[in-house]
Formats: sequence, structure tokens, C-alpha cells
Amino acid sequence: MDRAKAVFRRYGFSPIDTPALEYAEILLGKVDPGAEIDRQIYRFRDQGDRDVALRFDLTVPLARFVAQHSQQLGIPFKRYHVGTVWRGENPQVGRRREFTQCDLDTIGTTSPIADAEMLAVTGDVLRALDVERFVIRVSDRRILSAALAKVGVEHEAPSVLRALDKLSKIGADGVARELVTSGLSSADAEAVLRLCSTRGSAAEVLGGLGPEADGLGEVVAAAVGLGASEERIVVDLSIARGLDYYTGMVFETFLEDLPSVGSVCSGGRYDDLASLYTSQLLPGVGASLGLTRLLDAWEELGSPSDEAHSATDVLVVRFPGETESALRVTALLRSHAVATELYPDERRVSDQLRYAQRRGHRLALLCGEDERAAGVVTIKDLRERVETTALLAELVAAVKGALDLE
Amino acid sequence: MDRAKAVFRRYGFSPIDTPALEYAEILLGKVDPGAEIDRQIYRFRDQGDRDVALRFDLTVPLARFVAQHSQQLGIPFKRYHVGTVWRGENPQVGRRREFTQCDLDTIGTTSPIADAEMLAVTGDVLRALDVERFVIRVSDRRILSAALAKVGVEHEAPSVLRALDKLSKIGADGVARELVTSGLSSADAEAVLRLCSTRGSAAEVLGGLGPEADGLGEVVAAAVGLGASEERIVVDLSIARGLDYYTGMVFETFLEDLPSVGSVCSGGRYDDLASLYTSQLLPGVGASLGLTRLLDAWEELGSPSDEAHSATDVLVVRFPGETESALRVTALLRSHAVATELYPDERRVSDQLRYAQRRGHRLALLCGEDERAAGVVTIKDLRERVETTALLAELVAAVKGALDLE
Repeated sequence: MDRAKAVFRRYGFSPIDTPALEYAEILLGKVDPGAEIDRQIYRFRDQGDRDVALRFDLTVPLARFVAQHSQQLGIPFKRYHVGTVWRGENPQVGRRREFTQCDLDTIGTTSPIADAEMLAVTGDVLRALDVERFVIRVSDRRILSAALAKVGVEHEAPSVLRALDKLSKIGADGVARELVTSGLSSADAEAVLRLCSTRGSAAEVLGGLGPEADGLGEVVAAAVGLGASEERIVVDLSIARGLDYYTGMVFETFLEDLPSVGSVCSGGRYDDLASLYTSQLLPGVGASLGLTRLLDAWEELGSPSDEAHSATDVLVVRFPGETESALRVTALLRSHAVATELYPDERRVSDQLRYAQRRGHRLALLCGEDERAAGVVTIKDLRERVETTALLAELVAAVKGALDLE
Repeated sequence: MDRAKAVFRRYGFSPIDTPALEYAEILLGKVDPGAEIDRQIYRFRDQGDRDVALRFDLTVPLARFVAQHSQQLGIPFKRYHVGTVWRGENPQVGRRREFTQCDLDTIGTTSPIADAEMLAVTGDVLRALDVERFVIRVSDRRILSAALAKVGVEHEAPSVLRALDKLSKIGADGVARELVTSGLSSADAEAVLRLCSTRGSAAEVLGGLGPEADGLGEVVAAAVGLGASEERIVVDLSIARGLDYYTGMVFETFLEDLPSVGSVCSGGRYDDLASLYTSQLLPGVGASLGLTRLLDAWEELGSPSDEAHSATDVLVVRFPGETESALRVTALLRSHAVATELYPDERRVSDQLRYAQRRGHRLALLCGEDERAAGVVTIKDLRERVETTALLAELVAAVKGALDLE
């Protein structure tokens, strides 16, 4: 999470937080009574008999926040938000009642550059998490809408998208049959299927499509200009996500080595974030990083940087009567920003080393009586299983060298 | 918060998190029905008619967590935990219904070094937050207990501490009268008052006190050995906090320039964290950082590093027809870890600069037609109000220089 946040900040997104507990009417403003969210929300009466609830996503609180503060915030407003949300559903793998969402949004602009940044930041975040093999699939719902409008069935867009969504399950013939049921002629169904099952670079897919495709072409070009790698962005007009909510560019991100976990980062452009709370029109573009899925994938694939995850690099071992030098060595390393743990108790050295192994410390430092007499510290590299000594004056450099720091 | 976390990690504390929502019986295990917390807790029945509640502190969840996982965790276990907690009380300045707590604990050891680390880490965290003028007041309740035991009123420790707590309000005479009411002779009351109103270094206060004072002396000496500054640690035996909970060293931390906000970091040693959930004896030492109070103090005192708080350093200004160089410059700076925002819309330059001023960007970069022709970028320093140009090849160094990065 820290690595992702560092990337967000590099892109000029600021952190925000909002309360987890809000008035139920604020959170449920747009939700139909009896809808899934209405059944899942944790809602109760507080000590003052107020009707309150725990947030079920970060979008509604963002809308409330922006509507309330839009005058002070200034436009465009770029924010990221990592927060806990709650849904009272049946827990299963990758789905919990309490989980973390990670959203970013740029609000108050219709510029394709804001869309492009979502693609670029997605790529940079995944690379920061040591994920190199991913594909960002992008689309713009207006392209399919224009194609449907040409053959007079624009209003069938939702059912067409639902049919296209089943492509991998029921095959091209099955989808074509569903399209005909939706009112398309066989020839039109064929054409729509061809349009939506072509995948490739922006140039390949968008080339002959006319002006409604220019916007998406511009977004992809700007993303590449911002450093996104062109071969990781695939135009795929069958993407069906967010039927009601998104109105322009939409995207999903899949891991090439584990597509089955689903999209690990998705988002798109919307026309109006907060119509419920303000009359000010707030167009924007957002993305949501699927932390739980990424963690599941990390576990499955074995993250290449697993080894870097031990919180603390160094354990200083205690010897009876040698507390002072242990304290000095510990303070010295910490003052040079080396994460260092001092074993608090005077246990046997073998016990302390076993603790270091178990905890994943990379180095154990021994400063016993012999070391003090010689003015050195013994450095045990627990991974490489080698032992060296260093003069106190050279200890920081030796430890940083052994840890590959700087 | 990020700065505090970096210090915690340097000391070998690992981050943990626990659910915000738990079974009410877990959270309320030790709480008497009708007690303040029992009235304040947010408690309700969920979709499955389970009796659940939102945590009101991070100590109870920690106890549950450690009891449940002590076999896998290994001992000692050092953790920090930053999390939201909820209490349904009447909001007032510095007291909200939903707020953030920040706790750290070392569990499973009785070593005075673990106590000393709490004092050292407190100092380092405050310094990392640019707070230099603070005093850590330490005590050990066993010293006062021994003094009371000598005159046969050990069981009066709670009322004695409560009386001492009023020293600043009712004065020495008032406290002496209350002590006599608690059963002390005038002479004994006098002696206790003298003991508890002496403040000074460990050597000054603990010098003549006998073996029950050695423990605290050892803690302070180890803290100094770990790099804590001796003049910031004051022994003050009147500290009354945590009557029921703490059993050894206790401490509170005050800002010299704003003592009125109260203690900004407090904690102490306890005998047994989780007796309710496990038969394993888990002694430890903990500290709690008062984030809200520190933020209030920062606001009041004006943090010296306020200027460093703008999330993003650089705004790249857009010129019509010059999108490509704006994208390139933005990508270049980000790839060198400079937080850079690209203005998304083609507005007037003056509007974009006003936005940068308002948002607190330190530099605005202009790459218009003239700049492109000359192969340079114009750097406007919005704080110093100076303007320079840099060759593209030297841009990263020039920007980092202007921002004082590395």
C-alpha cells in the first residue's frame, strides 16, 4: 500500500479520508429501497437515536465530500482514498464483510489527459508492486453506441453489452443469436460482433471507425506520452463495466499470469459525480485498485519481492553484561535509518538467533565481550550464512552494504 | 503519520491491523455493564442477527489478536497499530465520535530495555514531527507503593494518587489535607508529598530511594543509551495514569510550548495483556501517540515544516498545441520521483498559475512554443518569485535543486 501511495503522490493525487460512519440517508441517497446495497449496508440507530450506517464504498462519501467542499477545493481536484468499507454479505474467497478499498479520482475536468493519467498511473502502480506482466483493456462506450445508432438500435446497448460479456462462455454464435433477439439483423449482429471482438492497439482497432473513436485514440496516445507502455494497452470494445455509471472511457486490468482473479484495477469517466448533493456539474474520471485481488495474486504467484517484506532488517543480540554496547550499536544503526531490533532479554545466543531466523531478520549483530575488547561487531548474515566482523566506525557502511541499501 | 510510522519501523515495530467490527462480547469482555464504555460503544445486530460492535480502542483488539496468534507470532512481539475507533460521546474540541488511535506495544518481555525503547521512540517520533521542545515525565508506581507500604497505608495508593493529581489545582496544603483524610499522619503526608513533588533527573530524584527505584533508574539509563536526550526525561513520581492497568513504569509527554493540550504520548508497563482470552501470561509495555492533540498543537504553534505539506511540488502548465512536450516533461519528472501534476485543461496560463498558487505547488513549469524551439523549460519558483530556464537534459537536476531534494 505504501508503494502504491508513493506513486499516487508522484502523480499529484492528494490523500483524503472521510468518516466511516455517516447518516444513512447520505450513504443511501441514490440507492433504491430493497436493492442489494440497501440489504447489505450496516445500519443502526446511535446513542442519540440518529439513523447512521457504515460506508459500503468510497464513491458516495467522495461525492458528499466534494459537493460540500467544492468551493475550497479548487478544480481540478485529484485525490486518492484508501479506506475500510463494510458490506453484510456472505464471506467467500476474495469477498469479506469488512475490506479495504483504494480509489483515485480526478474531478472537475473533461480533459482526455485526466483519462490518460488513470492508465499511466495504473501501469506505474503495478510496476511498483513488481507486477510486470499485465494488460490494460480500454474502451469507450460511445463507440459501440454510435455503431448501434447507425443501425437504429442504440437503446439496445445494455442488452448488447450483456450479450458480449458472455463471449468467452457461449461463443460468437451464441452471442450473435442473443444480438438478433435484441432486434439486430444478422448482418448487423455480425458487424457488431466483429467490432467488439477485435482486440489490438489503438491504431489497429480504432483506425477506420470515424470521429467517435478519436477521443479514445487521444487518451491512449496521451497515456503513452506519459510513459505508459504501448504494448500493455489493448483496445477492447466489449468491456461492459459500469453500465449506468460510466459515460466515456472505461478500462479493466488483468494479470497475464493470473487472469482468473479478474480485473485488478478498473475505472472510467463519468459525467457527474455528485448530482444528488450539488447542482454543480462535476465530471471526472476514476480508478479503483483491487488490493485484495492483488494480494491473492501475490500469494498465488509468489511475489518477486517477498524477501523484502520483513519489517526489520537487523537484530542486535544481547550478551550478559554487555548491554551498553548493544544499546550503542542499536542507536547508531537506527540513527542511520536502518530498521533495527534489539532483543530485550538476556537469553541464550542460540535462542536469540532462532528468533531472528523465524522473524526474517537478515542480519544478526553480536557484540559480546570479545568483540568489545577488539572494538568490532560480528555480523551474521542469516540468509547467506556467512559471518564477518566490522570495526565500530565502519559498522553502518558494512551493514548497509550487506543489506544492499544505497 | 507517515513520519511516525517510519520511526516505528526503524525500531523494529511491525504494523498490524484488526477488524473495526467485532463481536460485542469480545470487545466488552472486561467492561462492567453500565460502565462508561458500555454506554458509549456503537453496538448493533447485523444481517445475521449477530451482536456486533465497533471497537472503542486498539488495546482490546490487540489482546484478542495476540491471544489468538501467540503461537505463530513468537515472543517478543513488537507491533504498532494506527486505526479508527468509535465512541458515542458528545463531541467537543479534541474529542470526536470517530477518531484515530496510534498504539505501539512490546509484548512478552519484562526487560527494562523494552520500557526504555518506549521513551526513546517517543522522543524520536516527536523529533520526526519537528517537535523539539517536549518533556517526557516518567514514574514507576511501585516506588510510591513502597513508600506507602513503609507507613502501612499501601492500600490507599489509589486515593493518594488521586489527591496528588490535584496538586496544581488545590496546592500542596490541599493535597496534604486529603492525604491525612486517607489515613496518613501529617508527617507521612508531608514525606509523600515531598517524594512526589520532587522533579528532576533520574539521579536527582531516585538517588536515595532504595531498591524499588533501581528499575526506573535502569529504564532511564537504557533510554539514554538508545539515544534519548537525558534532559528531556524528567522523573515525576506523581504521575497517576492508568491506575488499574499499569503495574510498573508509566510515562506522559508534554509540549513545553503548549502543555495545555495534555499528554501527547503516554503509556506504561502492564503485567498481563490478555488474561481474558488466554491463560498464557503476556506482560508488556505500550505507548499511545495522541495524534489529534499533536495536530491541534501543530495548528496552534504553526509547524515549522508546514511548507513541506503540499502533496505535490510541481505543476506543469499546458499550452495549446504543446501537449506532447508537457506530457514528456511530466513523465520525466515523475520517473525521477518528483511529485508532478499536469494541468489537464488548456486554460489561460494565468488561471493555471493561480491554481498552482492556491494548491501550494512550489514550482510551475512552462513549456510553450518558444521553450520548445529553444530546447528549454521555464521554471517559475512560486515561493521565491524567480524565473529561470533549464535545458531539457538538465531539467531534473534543476528542479530537484530548486526543491532542495537531495
